[in-house]
Amino acid sequence: MPFDPASLTYDSNGLIPAIAQDAESGEVLMMAWMNAEAVARTLETGRVTYWSRSRQAFWVKGESSGHVQELVDLRVDCDRDCLLVQVRQTGPACHTNRRSCFYTAIRGGDEVELMRPMEG
Amino acid sequence: MPFDPASLTYDSNGLIPAIAQDAESGEVLMMAWMNAEAVARTLETGRVTYWSRSRQAFWVKGESSGHVQELVDLRVDCDRDCLLVQVRQTGPACHTNRRSCFYTAIRGGDEVELMRPMEG
Repeated sequence: MPFDPASLTYDSNGLIPAIAQDAESGEVLMMAWMNAEAVARTLETGRVTYWSRSRQAFWVKGESSGHVQELVDLRVDCDRDCLLVQVRQTGPACHTNRRSCFYTAIRGGDEVELMRPMEG
Repeated sequence: MPFDPASLTYDSNGLIPAIAQDAESGEVLMMAWMNAEAVARTLETGRVTYWSRSRQAFWVKGESSGHVQELVDLRVDCDRDCLLVQVRQTGPACHTNRRSCFYTAIRGGDEVELMRPMEG
């Protein structure tokens, strides 16, 4: 069946959450948002492209930092209201320079930092 | 640092997205929503508990189906506006009886079904 980005379910702001996962290790790297045009651009270019809610602009991941996400596989969930993008991530995915944004664990009621920023 | 669910950033409906990942295989199983009380209950009980937007009620995953999610680790992202719950999933995570909700891939412009419903 041909895929149409308009067939997805977007929220009241026209956005859908997209989970980025390292295609090789399975590590969950980050979650950000796409609109229909960002979904189309991601598929067309193979460069994962989000919609920045703070800047209200397209955000080609890594465009300024070099920490690009090359699309390996795009998946849609059963309700068509969430995406999973499996990627080849260059360098850190997180703006704190950590590999993943999910570097804080809650253990025994405390916050524990699991990762340090990457070098360079 | 002690963790307080009130320290997370919730959307205008008081909700935060929570990504459920198989703690062993790394497979991303589903995405659903929690409010602050669901986060607290998940940590207290070790049973992953969401907030059902359609039913407007707490949703202890697997309470009726038996397809429970036992919490292994809870992670917070850098912006504190998304959660990653690593779980031991009993049976399928998806209401379609598939292991994961992300069973549809977009490949070559077409939708491809990657998983069949589990037996039983």
